Amino acid sequence: MENAAIKFISQFITLSKEEEEILLKLNLVKEFKKGTILLREGEMAKNCYLVLKGCIRSYYLVDGEEKIAEFYTEHQPVTPVSYTTQNPSEYYLETLEDCILSLGTPASTEELIKQFPRIETVSLLISNQLLVNSQVSFDNYRNLSPEQRYFKLLETRPDLCNRVPQYMLASYLGIQPQSLSRIRRRIKENKV
Amino acid sequence: MENAAIKFISQFITLSKEEEEILLKLNLVKEFKKGTILLREGEMAKNCYLVLKGCIRSYYLVDGEEKIAEFYTEHQPVTPVSYTTQNPSEYYLETLEDCILSLGTPASTEELIKQFPRIETVSLLISNQLLVNSQVSFDNYRNLSPEQRYFKLLETRPDLCNRVPQYMLASYLGIQPQSLSRIRRRIKENKV
Repeated sequence: MENAAIKFISQFITLSKEEEEILLKLNLVKEFKKGTILLREGEMAKNCYLVLKGCIRSYYLVDGEEKIAEFYTEHQPVTPVSYTTQNPSEYYLETLEDCILSLGTPASTEELIKQFPRIETVSLLISNQLLVNSQVSFDNYRNLSPEQRYFKLLETRPDLCNRVPQYMLASYLGIQPQSLSRIRRRIKENKV
Repeated sequence: MENAAIKFISQFITLSKEEEEILLKLNLVKEFKKGTILLREGEMAKNCYLVLKGCIRSYYLVDGEEKIAEFYTEHQPVTPVSYTTQNPSEYYLETLEDCILSLGTPASTEELIKQFPRIETVSLLISNQLLVNSQVSFDNYRNLSPEQRYFKLLETRPDLCNRVPQYMLASYLGIQPQSLSRIRRRIKENKV
């Protein structure tokens, strides 16, 4: 399973044999059952993650209602805001499927950088890419109609539409569940 | 004016005299008149910026209507999505005031990293901070009511409310200009 982390990093730079060994040695991989809360509102995030297998959601509780902020699936890094800011988390992280995750801590990251300095270059590339993704998602959310948002999701993350319950998708897209059902029905009818 | 760039980076690490000199030497500072289009939809972004003085907006043209995505003011870095992805820009960048900007290019960044390797550590810190800001802004936008969004803006960026035209603020907050006027009137009346 550790190979997934190496594969992920190899998208950005070519790893030497030595670097691969450092990664294998320092890479902490853990399994989590479906429905595990990885982080609660008010808690300090101690870990960042890389999803090797499975699906995680982040959500806020707003007046008792769950508001989904993000879904993280295979090969996506999960860096809670609280992990970066060292302020209590404002949202929850929960596994939606049985998951295999690679875990990072500030200490393990420091050790990794010490033994493998080039990882900083990779981290910067990843961070810049995540920043672009976050900005584009936000802009799409503001500029697109609910139906267009759903089409964009079908185009960019088609797997999500099958592995995540529809009411969660609706919350993520900022659409009423009934409206999402109508959109899906319309698409289906047009396809037949 | 170059000192502003050094001051900005000094928030993250303590610079040596030598590093300061490299920065001064490689730092390209330019002035732009109010109303200058720095980047157009469809163009490739050749520069990233650090705002030393002034205000820049980014906006999309959606069915002929301007949709404001962001305002950048003093000491904020501006990295267009197109600069990172090397795809044509989907939005415009325009100076809203006379501006003094520090300019970066892929070549100048490469040279900077070569002469001043620690800048990568700084870049990573900045990038992680920008990522957090982007995520929190997006989450606030989804979870807060229009009125709450305006309060959050007053709290986090009070200067914007005075230096940016009200109809642009409304677009940025995703509120009808009339609704924003109503909210502002209500606040004023409650304060008297």
